[in-house]
Amino acid sequence: MLTSLRLKPKTERRLKSGHLWVYSNEVDTAQTPLKNITAGEQVVIEAASGKPLGVAVMNPDQLICGRLISRSPSQLLDASLIVHRLQVALSSRELWYPHQCYRWVYGDSDGLPGLVIDRFGDVAVIQISSVAMEMLRDDIIDAVHKVASPATIVLKNDGKLRAVEGLDEYVDIVHGQLEDDCAPLIENDTRFMAPVIHGQKTGWFYDHRENRAQLNRLVKGKRVLDVFSYVGGWGVQAANHGASEVHCVDASAQALDWVEENAALNGVEDKLHCWEGDAFAALKQLRDNGERFDIVVVDPPAFIPRRKDVKAGEQAYKRINQIAMRLLNKDGMIVAGSCSMHLADDRLPDILRVLGRELDREVLIQHVGSQGADHPVQPAIPETRYLKAVFARVLPTR
Amino acid sequence: MLTSLRLKPKTERRLKSGHLWVYSNEVDTAQTPLKNITAGEQVVIEAASGKPLGVAVMNPDQLICGRLISRSPSQLLDASLIVHRLQVALSSRELWYPHQCYRWVYGDSDGLPGLVIDRFGDVAVIQISSVAMEMLRDDIIDAVHKVASPATIVLKNDGKLRAVEGLDEYVDIVHGQLEDDCAPLIENDTRFMAPVIHGQKTGWFYDHRENRAQLNRLVKGKRVLDVFSYVGGWGVQAANHGASEVHCVDASAQALDWVEENAALNGVEDKLHCWEGDAFAALKQLRDNGERFDIVVVDPPAFIPRRKDVKAGEQAYKRINQIAMRLLNKDGMIVAGSCSMHLADDRLPDILRVLGRELDREVLIQHVGSQGADHPVQPAIPETRYLKAVFARVLPTR
Repeated sequence: MLTSLRLKPKTERRLKSGHLWVYSNEVDTAQTPLKNITAGEQVVIEAASGKPLGVAVMNPDQLICGRLISRSPSQLLDASLIVHRLQVALSSRELWYPHQCYRWVYGDSDGLPGLVIDRFGDVAVIQISSVAMEMLRDDIIDAVHKVASPATIVLKNDGKLRAVEGLDEYVDIVHGQLEDDCAPLIENDTRFMAPVIHGQKTGWFYDHRENRAQLNRLVKGKRVLDVFSYVGGWGVQAANHGASEVHCVDASAQALDWVEENAALNGVEDKLHCWEGDAFAALKQLRDNGERFDIVVVDPPAFIPRRKDVKAGEQAYKRINQIAMRLLNKDGMIVAGSCSMHLADDRLPDILRVLGRELDREVLIQHVGSQGADHPVQPAIPETRYLKAVFARVLPTR
Repeated sequence: MLTSLRLKPKTERRLKSGHLWVYSNEVDTAQTPLKNITAGEQVVIEAASGKPLGVAVMNPDQLICGRLISRSPSQLLDASLIVHRLQVALSSRELWYPHQCYRWVYGDSDGLPGLVIDRFGDVAVIQISSVAMEMLRDDIIDAVHKVASPATIVLKNDGKLRAVEGLDEYVDIVHGQLEDDCAPLIENDTRFMAPVIHGQKTGWFYDHRENRAQLNRLVKGKRVLDVFSYVGGWGVQAANHGASEVHCVDASAQALDWVEENAALNGVEDKLHCWEGDAFAALKQLRDNGERFDIVVVDPPAFIPRRKDVKAGEQAYKRINQIAMRLLNKDGMIVAGSCSMHLADDRLPDILRVLGRELDREVLIQHVGSQGADHPVQPAIPETRYLKAVFARVLPTR
């Protein structure tokens, strides 16, 4: 029998509307004290009326203290439910993506809060970021075996969120082996090695796949600049789709080594040029050198990590896109990306509009993309939608 | 020497920010009376300070009385500028689309307010909706010849906007011939005949091309329902990409005849089933008959023609998508479209969220698309962005 947690009056509305989070200040702690709940415990959430709303996994020390995993009060998150959820998530991905390369599990959206799994064919990389999921770790690994039987399973448990939950950080190959600490993948017909052990997050950012597919349509014969290239997701694909020349800029020498390896994997290493350094400084240098490009991709890390950073972050997006726009040839294209959830959808197009006016260019938005279908959006939870990619043509002012 | 039109103080801000429209109540009519301006005339727009802001084409009787065509005070819209603008627009389209099938000119976004040109390979269909463009009609036809030399040029001048501008309605093949009053086109590798003389608008809606391309990825072996099918843009492509069965619903018997012709063009007529009738009634009938589908596409005409229709229109979107959702098989997909500019971006996902809760389903947004790159958005003019297509997976509630 699960413990029940009673909500204060009216706070059940958000859950009923489809949201899945319980905030600690919504709990009627007089009736059901949070201090009786242990981290990782599963409880029945009740409306103020006593009506059960479902089962949540808990961390009583967090502002978001509960995350609903089921609307049935008798449905525990256990080995069998994890298998079922993995199967449902898998079928949603296989509808869209071949090659078994995708984000297989995307947290709350897949009914598995605190869990991310990226699949690279025969390699599954698991990221756990909550106490509840850590407690279910062995069940998760078993479920991954049962549903997809990958040759290799990696626990990449070094995300920043773990410390917040009081979890230690570790990386472990819990099943099989990994050659060179990398996993091979195919994205939009280009081959890559994802550095799943030593790279960022799971080693690869599947979220921009659809946006890179759009870029691939445009690059034939073009001179392309890929700013914040990481391991070459945009740049190597562009080279592989006929770009005449691709220049990658990144602050990490190791990332650029991987760019070169990935280019070689596709036989396009001759077209690739890498520039190590701070993006702002490197772009200024390229401009001073008189370099110009047909297409510039600007896909920075999140400039707005917290809501209070919106203003400074927007300034940073403006600054980097301004330098990028000044590096364009006459009828160029800028691809402005953002993975900041706190950046509103209309801001990047508007920043490009302002830059166009300031630099006396005509800016036309030809495409706006977001995260791919393997990062499904839970429409009640705006936080599940974060990625933007704006494709803007930059023409002489009329 | 062009007449000048002086704006009231501070009203120049919008133009300076990148917008292109002059509202009649922004004109300093004490200094520069609008009654001295004739419809179709080109004038220099000046800020209150007297500083010239550019040249606009005018219709003094309209609320939007002027549309900027250049930021240079000496740049008239004439034969040579039209040729140049057609060339620039063409190069933007050819970057994205093969087969010479696209919206070649999209009004304000291409610096040609009041003009739309859809290209179907060797057939160009021109739509003129302003007095200024009507006066330049022969120059436009000549420019189309000069830039693309199509075998056939059609003036499809029967849009509703013409009456507002005091223009008569007519349809005329001004150059070449047209077999069966239709133009052949290829969209995402499927062949169609667009009824450019007797169909809606230019005969074809290129705007959903990218969204149909997304659908094509998902349909293999699926049973698909295409509601408001018109000539089969979604349905026939789905059949051609491996859907097991496609049912098209439309109120127009003639549209459904064209669906059948387009299906036959691609050899998929055996999979196509047409239902003539009001969409709401037809969907209820299908439901009563126990029909179920894997994918339902709901792409209605604009339910929100004017801003004051938002509330009623949103109700209509909700109603039709509700019936559609009830026709889905267990792990189905709904594709909810809207061409209503007045429907905010977040409304369709939210309507689907509400429906999911009401029908006890889990709704996940897997893709959100908009108009294709041949309908570029002028970021200062929100009205240039109007199309939405939301791909939502509809699962059993967790």
